[in-house]
Amino acid sequence: MSKTVSVVENIMSANDRLAAKNKERLDAAGVVAINLMASPGAGKTSLITRTVEALRDDLAIGAVDGDVATTIDADRIAASGIPAVQINTGGACHLDAVMLQEALPQLPLDELDLLIVENVGNLVCPASFDLGVHRSVLIASVPEGDDKPYKYPVMYRGVDAVILNKIDVLDAFDFDIDYFRRGVEALNPGLTFLSLSCKTGEGFEAWLTWLREETS
Amino acid sequence: MSKTVSVVENIMSANDRLAAKNKERLDAAGVVAINLMASPGAGKTSLITRTVEALRDDLAIGAVDGDVATTIDADRIAASGIPAVQINTGGACHLDAVMLQEALPQLPLDELDLLIVENVGNLVCPASFDLGVHRSVLIASVPEGDDKPYKYPVMYRGVDAVILNKIDVLDAFDFDIDYFRRGVEALNPGLTFLSLSCKTGEGFEAWLTWLREETS
Repeated sequence: MSKTVSVVENIMSANDRLAAKNKERLDAAGVVAINLMASPGAGKTSLITRTVEALRDDLAIGAVDGDVATTIDADRIAASGIPAVQINTGGACHLDAVMLQEALPQLPLDELDLLIVENVGNLVCPASFDLGVHRSVLIASVPEGDDKPYKYPVMYRGVDAVILNKIDVLDAFDFDIDYFRRGVEALNPGLTFLSLSCKTGEGFEAWLTWLREETS
Repeated sequence: MSKTVSVVENIMSANDRLAAKNKERLDAAGVVAINLMASPGAGKTSLITRTVEALRDDLAIGAVDGDVATTIDADRIAASGIPAVQINTGGACHLDAVMLQEALPQLPLDELDLLIVENVGNLVCPASFDLGVHRSVLIASVPEGDDKPYKYPVMYRGVDAVILNKIDVLDAFDFDIDYFRRGVEALNPGLTFLSLSCKTGEGFEAWLTWLREETS
C-alpha cells in the first residue's frame, strides 16, 4: 500500500514540476493559456470555434485539443483557421503537464496571444492535474442538470470561471439556475459565473469581455 | 517505469479476482446485476427510478449508487422504496470490485431479482474496472451529441446495451441518430440498441422487455 502511494506522489510532484516549466515557457512567449474542462458534450469545441470566429481580428489564438481517441475536435478547430495541435491520450482520462509540454513546441507560441487547451471530456479526473496554464474554465450545460456542482465539487472548486452553456434549451429541462449557481458559489466564492448559448450566441459577449480582460 | 506498470498490473488483477468473487456471490443469491454507466447527467438515476416504478410488482430490485460526493442520487433511489446502498468514492472516478464487494452485504441479496449498480458519471474510467456483474449498460443522451461513440470508443465497445436517452428533445439539437447508431454498431456489433425518454416514457417499454428477458 505504501509503495503504491509513494509512486502516485512521485507522479504528482513530477507533474507539478513540468507544469511550472510549461508556465515559464508560456510566460516567456507572452501567451495566456486557459484549461477548458467539461463533461463530454457540454460544448467545449463549440465554445472554442465560436470564440475564434468572434475574436480572430483582435487576438491570435491557438488551441491544444485533448481526446482519448480520434481527431474530430481538433479537425473542427483547425477548420476555423487557427493553429491547433491534437493530443491523443491513448485512452487516458485527462491531460497532464507532460502531454502539454510535448504539444507546445508544435505551436507558433511567439505569435499567439491566447492558447486554449481543451481537456478530455470528464468531470472528475482533469481537476487533479495541473497543466501550468494561467486560468481554468469549466463548461456546464443545462441538459446535464442543476445538481452537478453538488455532485462533482472538486472540479467546480478549482476553476476561475464557470460557464453555463445551452441556455437556449432551458425551457425543455427542469433546471433551476438559482440552485445551480448557489452550489457553484458555495464551493467557489468570487469566481466568474457566465451563462450563454454557443448555438444562438445569447450571453456570449460577456465571455468575450472576460477573455479580453484576461489577455490584456 | 517498470515498477509503475507492475503496480498497475497488480491492482488490475486484484480487481479481477474480487470481481469474480462478486459474481459468485450474486449467482449464489440468484441476483442478476447490471453496471449502469454514463456521462454526468445522461439520466442514470432517472432510468433507475422510472424502472423501479414500472417493475416494482414484477421484480425485486435493489441498487448500489456510486458517486464522488454527496448522497443525492442514493436518496432519490431510496425514496422510490427499494433497498439502496450509497458508495461514496471519496473523489475516485469509477467504481471498482472492492467497493462493490463492501456494498453487497448491506443489501438483502437473497430477496432480490435484479441489482442495478449506478457507476460514477464518467465516460472513460469505469470501462476499465470489472465489477463482477452480469451485464453492462451505457446511457447516452441526445444533448451530448452524436459523435460520442467515435470519441469514447472503449466505453461503447465493452457494453451489452446502449440506451439513447432524452429523445424528447431531439428537435432542439443537431443529433443524427443514424450517424450515432452506425458509430455504436461499428464498435460493438450485435449489441442491444434502445432509444427512449425517461421523462416522457417514450420507448421505455422496450427497455423493460430487455430487463425482463435478462432476469428471467
